[in-house]
Amino acid sequence: MLIESMTRKASIDLLKRARVARLGYIQDGQPYIVPMSFEYDVDYLYGFSTEGHKTTWMRANPRVCVEVDDLATTEKWETVIVLGQYEELPNTDEHEASRTHAHALMQKRPAWWEPGYVKAIVDGKERPLEAMYFRIRIAQITGRRGIPS
Amino acid sequence: MLIESMTRKASIDLLKRARVARLGYIQDGQPYIVPMSFEYDVDYLYGFSTEGHKTTWMRANPRVCVEVDDLATTEKWETVIVLGQYEELPNTDEHEASRTHAHALMQKRPAWWEPGYVKAIVDGKERPLEAMYFRIRIAQITGRRGIPS
Repeated sequence: MLIESMTRKASIDLLKRARVARLGYIQDGQPYIVPMSFEYDVDYLYGFSTEGHKTTWMRANPRVCVEVDDLATTEKWETVIVLGQYEELPNTDEHEASRTHAHALMQKRPAWWEPGYVKAIVDGKERPLEAMYFRIRIAQITGRRGIPS
Repeated sequence: MLIESMTRKASIDLLKRARVARLGYIQDGQPYIVPMSFEYDVDYLYGFSTEGHKTTWMRANPRVCVEVDDLATTEKWETVIVLGQYEELPNTDEHEASRTHAHALMQKRPAWWEPGYVKAIVDGKERPLEAMYFRIRIAQITGRRGIPS
């Protein structure tokens, strides 16, 4: 197997193709990971959440990591890591344009993993339906791929 | 969709079933995520790596997170988060038994994602073949599942 760095373009291609990412954030010195659905657009990854937990912690510490991968076989795989800054897009005039943009992006196709959108009963209690839109300002993109040799 | 907490037993069932996890660690206040192959065994998750990067950082800050999931559909999914402590199993007499145990566990079946095992040329340079075995001492397991309603 050859392992090689991916070009920025190839890394972005995977970000465009992938529908599910894993989002890493820090809570009191402890890393956490949650799956998330997202859309890539130029300098940002857009996502949403109805959960209080992760947004509370990302607000407190906005340095996050997003990992996407395409693991076809043991020797044929791609992984891309995005390091970036969490930014909320609350329901205010100031963020209206960005929210609308995020919404339009995420509506483009049915998300494969979208618990944020569906009516949900969480441990017996109805969850508020309104999603918190957020975006991650991309500071760094790195990708590696394995190639059968 | 109903979202409910998973029992410890159901969470462990997913840890036994899943072959790929995402491992989260912290480097200088920045979370990182890498895919990893692993085996669950009682109080530990066992894995290995030939990469220097992540082992260096987990040695410096052993608080890690492991996420596994089974995302069948938008409304039918399970995710489990393990919080724990990184422990290396270096090639020394002291760790011989644990290394042998880790090796036996990981040999049980062909890992789907095992770049640590194969001869690899990384960016043109041959990578050392010897794997660093490690384990993650499980401090906490939590799981959530979505159920179509």
